Amino acid sequence: MNQIFNFSAGPAMLPKQVLEEAQKELCDYKGCGMSVMEMSHRSDLFRMILEETEQTLRTLANIPLEYDVLFLQGGASLQFAMVPMNFMKHGKAAYILTGHWAKKAYQEAKKFGNVQVLASSEDEQFSYIPEWNLADISNNTDYIYICENNTIYGTKFTTLPNINDKPLVADVSSCFLSEPIDVTKYGLLFAGAQKNIGPAGVTIVIVRKDLIREAVLPEIPTLLRYKTHVDAHSLYHTPPCYSIYMCGKVFLWLLHIGGLEAIQYYNQKKAMRLYDYLDHSRIFKGTAQRAYRSLMNVPFITGNSNMDALFIQKAKEHGLENLKGHRLVGGMRASIYNAMPMEGIEALLACMNQFEKEYGVK
Amino acid sequence: MNQIFNFSAGPAMLPKQVLEEAQKELCDYKGCGMSVMEMSHRSDLFRMILEETEQTLRTLANIPLEYDVLFLQGGASLQFAMVPMNFMKHGKAAYILTGHWAKKAYQEAKKFGNVQVLASSEDEQFSYIPEWNLADISNNTDYIYICENNTIYGTKFTTLPNINDKPLVADVSSCFLSEPIDVTKYGLLFAGAQKNIGPAGVTIVIVRKDLIREAVLPEIPTLLRYKTHVDAHSLYHTPPCYSIYMCGKVFLWLLHIGGLEAIQYYNQKKAMRLYDYLDHSRIFKGTAQRAYRSLMNVPFITGNSNMDALFIQKAKEHGLENLKGHRLVGGMRASIYNAMPMEGIEALLACMNQFEKEYGVK
Repeated sequence: MNQIFNFSAGPAMLPKQVLEEAQKELCDYKGCGMSVMEMSHRSDLFRMILEETEQTLRTLANIPLEYDVLFLQGGASLQFAMVPMNFMKHGKAAYILTGHWAKKAYQEAKKFGNVQVLASSEDEQFSYIPEWNLADISNNTDYIYICENNTIYGTKFTTLPNINDKPLVADVSSCFLSEPIDVTKYGLLFAGAQKNIGPAGVTIVIVRKDLIREAVLPEIPTLLRYKTHVDAHSLYHTPPCYSIYMCGKVFLWLLHIGGLEAIQYYNQKKAMRLYDYLDHSRIFKGTAQRAYRSLMNVPFITGNSNMDALFIQKAKEHGLENLKGHRLVGGMRASIYNAMPMEGIEALLACMNQFEKEYGVK
Repeated sequence: MNQIFNFSAGPAMLPKQVLEEAQKELCDYKGCGMSVMEMSHRSDLFRMILEETEQTLRTLANIPLEYDVLFLQGGASLQFAMVPMNFMKHGKAAYILTGHWAKKAYQEAKKFGNVQVLASSEDEQFSYIPEWNLADISNNTDYIYICENNTIYGTKFTTLPNINDKPLVADVSSCFLSEPIDVTKYGLLFAGAQKNIGPAGVTIVIVRKDLIREAVLPEIPTLLRYKTHVDAHSLYHTPPCYSIYMCGKVFLWLLHIGGLEAIQYYNQKKAMRLYDYLDHSRIFKGTAQRAYRSLMNVPFITGNSNMDALFIQKAKEHGLENLKGHRLVGGMRASIYNAMPMEGIEALLACMNQFEKEYGVK
C-alpha cells in the first residue's frame, strides 16, 4: 500500500484499526455466517448493532435521555429541509450565515417560512464568525440556526447563540466528536457521517424529545418527519445498515483512545502545529481570522493561484491527497479530522517547508 | 464460517465473490492507499467508480440514453413521496393496489393530490394481481403507479398497464435485475438496493429524461427534486459512495455470469423447484395464486401457526435463516434473490421434506 495522507474535507480518512477490523468481519460477522451488509434490519443481530452503536455514541457525547438519537439518510442537505418542515410552528426562524452551507440551509428554509438573517460574515468572505444580538430575534421565531464549523472557510463558533425558550439547531457535520460537546445547549444537532463519524450515507440527528411532539405541516413526506423515525427508533424503513455498523466501530475506537477529551487534546496539538507554521511562514497564510479558527479544516493560500496549484501538485507527489481548497475559495485546505494522525501533519509541514525553500522569497 | 442460507426479504444475500473482492479491497482500493469509504466523492477515482457502475448497469439492463440513472438515498419509501411531488402536474394519479408497499405509496401520494385506485386485490389478501381497465383512468392523470413484485405477498405483474401518453411508474425493488427488463415501458422505475443490487442505503432511479424537465411544486425540498440529481449526475451532495461501489461489483458479477437472461434462467429453475414442491406437499402450501407467482419471494404456510413457528425454528437449526413471513401475513417466506444459490433451495427442500415426514399426516 502507498503511504498516503488524505486531507479530504469529506468523505475523509477513517481510523486504520477500524478499517482493518471491518475487513476481517466483512464476509462473516462474528461467526454468524453473514456479512453485516446481508443482515435483515429486523434481525436480532442487526438490532443489537444499532443499539450498541447508539449506546456508545450516548456514552461518548454524554447524550441525556431527553434526547433521541436518529440514524437517517439524505445527508446534512436533507436536514436543511427537514428542520424548517418540522420546526417552523410559527413559520419563522433566524439564521446566522457563516458560510456556504449555512447559506444553503437558509435558502432551503425560505421555501417553508419567514427566515431572518440574524448575522452574516459574507462581507469578508466568511473569514470570521459575526456578532449577533439575540434581542433582534422576532417574537415568534421557532428556532435559531447555525453551522457550527464551516468546512470551506475554516471557522468555528467559540460561543453559541443560546436563549432558553428558543431551540438552537446546529449543523455540526465537520466538528461533531472532535471535542467534548454539551448536547443540552441544542434543540437539535445533526452531522453527516463522512467527516468524523463513518462512511457517507448516514446522518446522525440528535433531537430533544419535547420538540418532536407534533408535526407542523400535514403534507410533510413521511420520511421527512422526525416523529416517523423517533417512533420507530430509526427502523421505520431499511436504514443504511452497513454505514451504521461502521459508525459504531468509529465510536468504539474513540472511546478506547480516551473519548472526546483525549481526541480534543490530540486535535488541538495537530491544529496548533499547523497554524503555528502558517503564522510564521513567509509564503503560506491561513485565511480564517485567528479568533475563529477551526480545529478540523485549515484553509490557506500563497496569494498566487499558480503557486497554489504548484504546491497542490507537489504535495500530491508526496502522497498528500485532496489539499485543494473548495472551488468557491480556491487555495489549499487541510482537513484534519480525528483519524488524521500527527504523522500526516508532520508530512504536510515537511512538504510546505521544502516548497518554501524552493519557491519562497529569500 | 457456518454454512447458512439467508432467505431474508432484504437486506439479503450478496454474491460470495462480491463480498470476497470487497474484503480484499477494503483498506486499499487498487493500490491507491485509501478505502473507497475514505474517498472524496469529487475525486477522479470515485467519479470513475460511479461512472463504471452506471455504465455496467446500462449495459446489463439495456437502458437507453433517453433515460437518466440516479443513485439516491432514502430508499423506496422516499420515492413514495418524490414520485407525486415531481410528477403530479395536474394533481392526479392512478394506483393499482397489490400489497402493503403499493398501499404505502398510495397513501403517501394522497398527501399531494387526487389519487384514483385503478384496481386492488385487497379483497383476497393481495394474493393475486387484479384486472384493470385503462379506460377508467381520468383524463388528466399524470401517471399510473404499480409495485411490480410484491415482496410480502409473493405476486408479480405478468403484463404492464401501459398507455402511451401516460407514464408508468413502477417500484421494482424486489424484482429488478432478476430477469430482462424493457426500460422503455416505464416513465420511471425505482428499486431499493438491498434485494438484488447491493447493501441498503442506495436507491436506483431510472427516469425518462423528458419527464423531469420542470418541477411541479415550488416548495419541494431541493433533495426531493429529480432534477437536482439529474443535473448533478447523482453528485449534488455526497452520495452513499461505498454502497454504490458495492452495487457496481454486483452489476459486474451479473454481467460475468451471463447477464439478465442467464440469471432469469437460474431464477426460474430455483423458483420452479420450490413451487413444484409446494404444489405437491401434503403440509406446505403457497399463498399466491399460481398465475401471478413471484420469482423472488415465495410465501407459504402450513395452515397452522404453531406448525409454522415450529418449522421456522427447525429450519433455523439447519442454517436456513429469516424464513419467517412478514408480520402482516405470518407463515413463511423464502426470498430467493439472485445471490441465493440452488444449494440454498435444495437445503430448504430437504428441511421441508424432513419436516413433512416428521409432522405430516401419513
